[in-house]
Amino acid sequence: MKKTEQNNGPGLKIIPLGGLEQIGMNITAFEYGDSIIVVDCGLSFPEDDMLGIDLVIPDITYLKNNIEKVKGFMITHGHEDHIGALPYVLKELNAPVYATRLTMGLIDNKLKEHNLINNVKRKVVKFGQTISLGEFRIEFIKTNHSIVDAAALAIYSPAGIVVHTGDFKVDYTPVFGDAIDLQRFAELGKKGVLALMCDSTNAERPGFTASERTVGKTFDALFEEHKNTRIIIATFASNVDRVQQIINSAYKFGRKVVVEGRSMVNTIEVATNLGCLSIPENTLIEVEQLKNYPDEKTVIITTGSQGESMAALSRMASSTHRKISIGPSDTVIFSSSPIPGNEKAVTNVINELLEKGADVIFQDVHVSGHACQEEIKLIYTLVHPKYAIPVHGEYKHMKAQAKIATDLGMAKENIFILKSGDVLELTEEKAAVVDKVPVGDILVDGLGVGDVGNVVLRDRQHLAQDGILIVVLGLETYTNQLVCGPDIVSRGFVYVKESDELMEEARYVVNEAVNNCLDKGIADWGKLKGAIRDSLGDYVWKKTKRRPMILPIIMEV
Amino acid sequence: MKKTEQNNGPGLKIIPLGGLEQIGMNITAFEYGDSIIVVDCGLSFPEDDMLGIDLVIPDITYLKNNIEKVKGFMITHGHEDHIGALPYVLKELNAPVYATRLTMGLIDNKLKEHNLINNVKRKVVKFGQTISLGEFRIEFIKTNHSIVDAAALAIYSPAGIVVHTGDFKVDYTPVFGDAIDLQRFAELGKKGVLALMCDSTNAERPGFTASERTVGKTFDALFEEHKNTRIIIATFASNVDRVQQIINSAYKFGRKVVVEGRSMVNTIEVATNLGCLSIPENTLIEVEQLKNYPDEKTVIITTGSQGESMAALSRMASSTHRKISIGPSDTVIFSSSPIPGNEKAVTNVINELLEKGADVIFQDVHVSGHACQEEIKLIYTLVHPKYAIPVHGEYKHMKAQAKIATDLGMAKENIFILKSGDVLELTEEKAAVVDKVPVGDILVDGLGVGDVGNVVLRDRQHLAQDGILIVVLGLETYTNQLVCGPDIVSRGFVYVKESDELMEEARYVVNEAVNNCLDKGIADWGKLKGAIRDSLGDYVWKKTKRRPMILPIIMEV
Repeated sequence: MKKTEQNNGPGLKIIPLGGLEQIGMNITAFEYGDSIIVVDCGLSFPEDDMLGIDLVIPDITYLKNNIEKVKGFMITHGHEDHIGALPYVLKELNAPVYATRLTMGLIDNKLKEHNLINNVKRKVVKFGQTISLGEFRIEFIKTNHSIVDAAALAIYSPAGIVVHTGDFKVDYTPVFGDAIDLQRFAELGKKGVLALMCDSTNAERPGFTASERTVGKTFDALFEEHKNTRIIIATFASNVDRVQQIINSAYKFGRKVVVEGRSMVNTIEVATNLGCLSIPENTLIEVEQLKNYPDEKTVIITTGSQGESMAALSRMASSTHRKISIGPSDTVIFSSSPIPGNEKAVTNVINELLEKGADVIFQDVHVSGHACQEEIKLIYTLVHPKYAIPVHGEYKHMKAQAKIATDLGMAKENIFILKSGDVLELTEEKAAVVDKVPVGDILVDGLGVGDVGNVVLRDRQHLAQDGILIVVLGLETYTNQLVCGPDIVSRGFVYVKESDELMEEARYVVNEAVNNCLDKGIADWGKLKGAIRDSLGDYVWKKTKRRPMILPIIMEV
Repeated sequence: MKKTEQNNGPGLKIIPLGGLEQIGMNITAFEYGDSIIVVDCGLSFPEDDMLGIDLVIPDITYLKNNIEKVKGFMITHGHEDHIGALPYVLKELNAPVYATRLTMGLIDNKLKEHNLINNVKRKVVKFGQTISLGEFRIEFIKTNHSIVDAAALAIYSPAGIVVHTGDFKVDYTPVFGDAIDLQRFAELGKKGVLALMCDSTNAERPGFTASERTVGKTFDALFEEHKNTRIIIATFASNVDRVQQIINSAYKFGRKVVVEGRSMVNTIEVATNLGCLSIPENTLIEVEQLKNYPDEKTVIITTGSQGESMAALSRMASSTHRKISIGPSDTVIFSSSPIPGNEKAVTNVINELLEKGADVIFQDVHVSGHACQEEIKLIYTLVHPKYAIPVHGEYKHMKAQAKIATDLGMAKENIFILKSGDVLELTEEKAAVVDKVPVGDILVDGLGVGDVGNVVLRDRQHLAQDGILIVVLGLETYTNQLVCGPDIVSRGFVYVKESDELMEEARYVVNEAVNNCLDKGIADWGKLKGAIRDSLGDYVWKKTKRRPMILPIIMEV
């Protein structure tokens, strides 16, 4: 009886607070009555114009405004775009965190770094297990992805069941653990699913994503082919299965393994402790021991597959790694593909390695962790949802998934490509975007969270473009007489030593402008500064076609 | 007799002054005795860390030091990476310029912009024509490329013949003009070629590059398929053949054509005047006339295929184009592929267009202008050089071409992967890198050429990262008493309005440090500034984990 009433009520609200129209920063609130649960809490990496920014986290104003409703965070898997904002968000909104084993291991690492480990309630969830939180029950369902222990969620609400795939692929022959629990998706479909929120990342790609296990075969072939060189393999630190397969091939071919790069070392430690990675005894060695083995008896697993300038592989390539140098007796394998935006950085590292004489293999030693079109069709067909809400991807990916859904016969009006902040309200009878909540990027720079906003960013962009000219002068109190200056100091504008004349003339121009004002009796500092900005700006533009920031500083003496 | 003497002499020197280990900035000097000719004179676009830089041109110190030897510039085709530095270089080293018709048309445009048109001797060369300059004769040979009138060069020197392909592909069915003059390459090969300098850009790609004409068929099919929408096509402004084919399809389907984007308008004007482009009457209309025609009767050809933020298509996508707005009745076609480094920008534009409801087609409406492996093999086999010098490409591309050459049976010691600045000396008997000349990037920022160097760039990078803190104080002459300040002004560091406390404490820290110094009688401004930098830097790092530039300014009152 109660259930029926609620079904006619306001329905289930799905509120993505990030992660749409972008890759990264996944976080979605599910609200029913007085209960909110949050799925994932990721960060994104700064765009090119976010100068000096370390990372970006979601604006959780809506959650803070409804803090008493928030029952907990459900985390689908341990990638940064799903867990990275947790330490920041939990500081403002402490609620229990639910995740599977390896996911929680990686979260624990983060909470320790932020000194939060003792303040946050955490619960490791098993696949098939269901959590009850307020009006919701949440079931964790086994999937496959490029990290171990990835989960989909079945979210049971009085308004109906929502299936959220998380990031997933269908791997019938996974390296570790079971294949995705397709039977459970089918059961839920039979039962009746209100909405499916499905990973869109590869929705533009036809066919099926290959099994992770195929990469293992490739490794074996490459180890066979390159028997006489050292082998260096760069891959994503979090891809435990990939690391496992490298270790398997190394063991098979009698090679010792060195692990390089802090994040790689950390992940391997967590995964080994949790039993997600099994390393034969006497296989791992320290980097210092490399010299005790011939090149052809060693493998180095390293970070840096994205060309990140500070990662271990990039340092090897640029000869700034203190312990490993690259030469003609190296085969370097990129077991990865460049994330959009990193193409050029990756190519630069490849060129540096080739110049040092290494053999570099950078194609076809990787499979994606995301479902392609046929897998998406499979999930839709098993789950058979009333409504489709493509997630995880840029607009073009979500649009491609929407097309798949219509091709499968879904009505267009039942498919929702949402924007972050949209409040989608669902009942069995109808679904519509009914409201908008505040969302946005909170920039993290060093210890500062949110203290760098548009004003500061614009200043940084301006400074980056043409530098700064600082004009300093001293005025006597009361009389407003010029007692020192105006002096001009520049940074990032021109090479001062070779621009004497320009700077001298600039000083003359400013001096004129200041004296002009003072002679006219203009004592208002705002006007004086305006006159300095205008005169110097015009002069500099005429001479250089540059627009440095001009900063007048007036001192009262 | 003379010839034999020279053959035993110091040989022909080939000196790349740019363009190797990078895409762009192609320029190579050929030196024999008292003669130097220069092939191409291109620019490159700034790397990500070259903040505020507009473009990059080569260091031509070597040419200036040998100015009396320089006989002229031979330009292979009209792309920026082959002609873009000419106006800058000619200002420092005025020598005649030789190029084919359209190439010279585009050069003329540049020289006019720089007020150089009346000061530079220019000669339009026909295919098959040979220029005599000092010890050299240079023959221009017809090739195909993604711009009309591209030439290869046969450079005759007393030491032998060098064939330089320029950028090329083999197009048996070009849109305009003839196919590449393979017979001439064969004749030269029969005669005996000392060295081949061949385009490496696509040396990693197997097979043959498709004919430009195949894109025309694709356009026809797309026009047929999208009969009911406006069609907007973005492509490279310089690809005259591509533009011709769009116009052909538009004419065939009874659509009017609008051209958008300054560089596109310029190129079309030059190409039309020179007869390289033929536009049926009453086909072109002005953008203002668009409203007089139904959407399905118009085509817009536009710049912006690389996602350049200021280009016409990007402005349409972001709703900042004043005359064209995008909607569901638009089909937008990217007839291009993203140049490495532009992938993300292109994707952003695609997403914006999709969000506005447009249909966006961005795959398989483009062919490359560069030779793939089978074409490279063809040229090597026809020319049959003694020495191979891969050019035009990053290291990995040149290395891939070197592999092709060895696969074709060339000895490894006859293949030279050069670095910019290498002096390769060649005779029939031997070849070796015998010297190194100065090379480098000259940065152009506004009107300034070379006045932004490493110091200024480092300052810009520092400013971009964490902003600047300026500390101003006034000291009385002689007595060194503090008469005003220290005051702190910041830009790009924190949002000042919300950081009162931090800035207040910082002022206190600086005040302490200054008074400490003055109390101790330290009057040396260098030491005082050092104390300010250290104390403030430490404080700020402790509080924010940021390292803004700290700039102390001391005024004498």
